[in-house]
Amino acid sequence: MTNPTAAMLVIGDEILSGRTRDANMYHLAGEMTKLGIDLKEVRVVSDDASAIIEAVNALRGRYDSVFTSGGIGPTHDDITADCVAAAFGAHIDVREDARAILAESYARRGIEMNEARLRMARIPDGATLIDNPVSAAPGFTMENVHVMAGVPSIFQAMVASVAPLLSGGAPLISATVRVTLPEGDVAGPLAKIAADAPSVSIGSYPFNNAEGMGSNVVIRGSDAALVEEVAQSLKLAFAGFVG
Amino acid sequence: MTNPTAAMLVIGDEILSGRTRDANMYHLAGEMTKLGIDLKEVRVVSDDASAIIEAVNALRGRYDSVFTSGGIGPTHDDITADCVAAAFGAHIDVREDARAILAESYARRGIEMNEARLRMARIPDGATLIDNPVSAAPGFTMENVHVMAGVPSIFQAMVASVAPLLSGGAPLISATVRVTLPEGDVAGPLAKIAADAPSVSIGSYPFNNAEGMGSNVVIRGSDAALVEEVAQSLKLAFAGFVG
Repeated sequence: MTNPTAAMLVIGDEILSGRTRDANMYHLAGEMTKLGIDLKEVRVVSDDASAIIEAVNALRGRYDSVFTSGGIGPTHDDITADCVAAAFGAHIDVREDARAILAESYARRGIEMNEARLRMARIPDGATLIDNPVSAAPGFTMENVHVMAGVPSIFQAMVASVAPLLSGGAPLISATVRVTLPEGDVAGPLAKIAADAPSVSIGSYPFNNAEGMGSNVVIRGSDAALVEEVAQSLKLAFAGFVG
Repeated sequence: MTNPTAAMLVIGDEILSGRTRDANMYHLAGEMTKLGIDLKEVRVVSDDASAIIEAVNALRGRYDSVFTSGGIGPTHDDITADCVAAAFGAHIDVREDARAILAESYARRGIEMNEARLRMARIPDGATLIDNPVSAAPGFTMENVHVMAGVPSIFQAMVASVAPLLSGGAPLISATVRVTLPEGDVAGPLAKIAADAPSVSIGSYPFNNAEGMGSNVVIRGSDAALVEEVAQSLKLAFAGFVG
């Protein structure tokens, strides 16, 4: 059985200029792993319509789910919703259900509904809304594309709204074996163990700190017993240098 | 005049699984901005040969420079050098110049040169080496593709090695105007100012903290006088709500 696949599209000049350090990729990656969905690719593009449309179309055809982050606010550089509509060839306009959510929230908070805010009710035909418990303005799901905010607190809330609707695979189990040998000494025996266990993924991540040099070897797979068995093989192979 | 363009390719299952939070994208983005090079796209792919080769070829044909991060260590999952060679159709093997650098460093440190470590001397024909002042094992530049380590301290050192060789454009100047109004109130006047100044890029980044709601409006461009002029227009437009 193979797990469902996902991709992420981060939209925003502020990430590519180095002004803002993206936090959403790391969050989504962790959530996908918990759900048993394999995040296979992330792309970051600027606030440019043709770049966004091309990336949406490349990713949605290739992976089971696509998650976008950013570009759904009220300002002129927020063009994600229109670009997703264009990618699907769908009509987009202010939609009554989204407008009602915004109107109710603004009325309650004493905020004026103006033309800019109304932009956040632009939703493509055929999309379903994603709840935004933080600031009301909804995201939306268009077929397999989930369009979400870039502000991390809202992005995280939207991921939580969407998560129960996704069909996950077997969650990824991982085990880490800490080997107090430099990676160059670990690599040989590790390659043999990896070749013998093709159904788990084994990665090696070197460290070099006050305690010396070493490698964290991470075994990942959906079969917990097999992951544990490989971890034991590693502990035997590096006996005396584990921990 | 348009600035040179760049893309980044981050390679590694540990990023996509959420085990590690990438730090190199943020670093490279800041360095490119300082050099006046427009970072236009970032892709993150897993340790999968066909995914790496395809991404290298897509990006190198499209942007002036490509920077890769990750997958050049001694273990079985370090396949970046071979994939870059395959992307260019270049022959790859242990190269004497790289082997000599490793041998000298290991001899000095009393570390054994073994088969796994020798993998780090695999360099495609036609590539030039990138200095690694941290742990000796070099990166390499193949035409417009700069292949660098994933460990942040080494990645940063390699970017510093490559930076003087890149021809930059006009560095991006930015000015930030902090407006103490919610983004929905800022958006309307902002759109007009942005439309009147097409040669600068204007982004709006909302905040909502103990001091209240507001928007940081960032003006970016290569013409310092124009950036300042637009900043002044914004301060006038939002007089009483700036600071």
